[in-house]
Amino acid sequence: MEFAVDKKIKSQIKFILEADKLKKVLRKTSITDRSRQENSAEHSWHAALIALVFSEYANEKIDTSKVIKMLLLHDLVEIEVGDTFLYDDTKRAQAEHREAEAAKKIFGMLPDEQAQDFAILWHEFEGKKTAEARFAKAIDRFAPLLMNYMNDGDVWMQNGISSEQCVKKNIPIKDGSEKLWNYAHALIQSGIEKGLFAK
Amino acid sequence: MEFAVDKKIKSQIKFILEADKLKKVLRKTSITDRSRQENSAEHSWHAALIALVFSEYANEKIDTSKVIKMLLLHDLVEIEVGDTFLYDDTKRAQAEHREAEAAKKIFGMLPDEQAQDFAILWHEFEGKKTAEARFAKAIDRFAPLLMNYMNDGDVWMQNGISSEQCVKKNIPIKDGSEKLWNYAHALIQSGIEKGLFAK
Repeated sequence: MEFAVDKKIKSQIKFILEADKLKKVLRKTSITDRSRQENSAEHSWHAALIALVFSEYANEKIDTSKVIKMLLLHDLVEIEVGDTFLYDDTKRAQAEHREAEAAKKIFGMLPDEQAQDFAILWHEFEGKKTAEARFAKAIDRFAPLLMNYMNDGDVWMQNGISSEQCVKKNIPIKDGSEKLWNYAHALIQSGIEKGLFAK
Repeated sequence: MEFAVDKKIKSQIKFILEADKLKKVLRKTSITDRSRQENSAEHSWHAALIALVFSEYANEKIDTSKVIKMLLLHDLVEIEVGDTFLYDDTKRAQAEHREAEAAKKIFGMLPDEQAQDFAILWHEFEGKKTAEARFAKAIDRFAPLLMNYMNDGDVWMQNGISSEQCVKKNIPIKDGSEKLWNYAHALIQSGIEKGLFAK
């Protein structure tokens, strides 16, 4: 921006424009008409909305607004690192350090206090040690599980994912919500019956 | 879903899958690498994030979480009605009634109490009578203004929008945030100097 503005708002605008790039980060999951891959920005919106809809199903008393804020921020690091497929354990381990660096970089664009607030929320989400983080993580898992089921398991089939792997990767939903895990588990069972998983 | 689940969660899942369709609703604005049009789902995410970043600039004391919830929900009616261009007054007048009907339909998919909560939030946003609604509306205007400026005014040029029209349509930002309006106004002035508007 060429025109005179205070330094604070300038750094916030820079962050907002950087965040716009999340719309270009593609995930494995397709949107449910299967016309294209989902991007991480619209996924973040969907996850925040789902958290709002399902907040009553959290195992513990949660601050829903905090969960929503976490989900708005949770994938911003992917602007630097890209989306890492849930089932790719090697890449996920490698990505961990790079994501923490990316968080420092992207949240560091904001004014100090806000940078710290956002980084704290992101680390809380990643740490899974609070009720809000566990519920936010549950929603982050639940959304693509539901979508992949609706899409006849295309991501599972294309990537050779078995139902056992699917259970293993999604059982953390239970830590955030028993109720949603029961649903997710029934959905996986139904997927097995329909032949949506690799053998 | 073929498997046994209670009626309540079933209706919520239906709503969540319906909401997925917002990822297919295209807006006039392009994302800032200009590779494609923005969709209303990723716009909703971006707007909610921007509200979080700029909450301190609201004219009045606001409940930021409520603003974020409004912005998560505000465009869901577009699944039925489509996005209506800010500068198309005829279409906007026509869309109003249809959007209210769409709100009834889409929120009506949810369990009664939740349907009512969501509809109340949506109507509050549209009504612009509370501090939260005015700030949410300001953000909803500010986001595409910033993006169009970054994209060398392509939407303005392609649609013959003058700087006067731009001011007229965006001055409601002032009702939510004087500070953001000052920024927006400087941005429009800069756009005039750069020749980004139709004459």
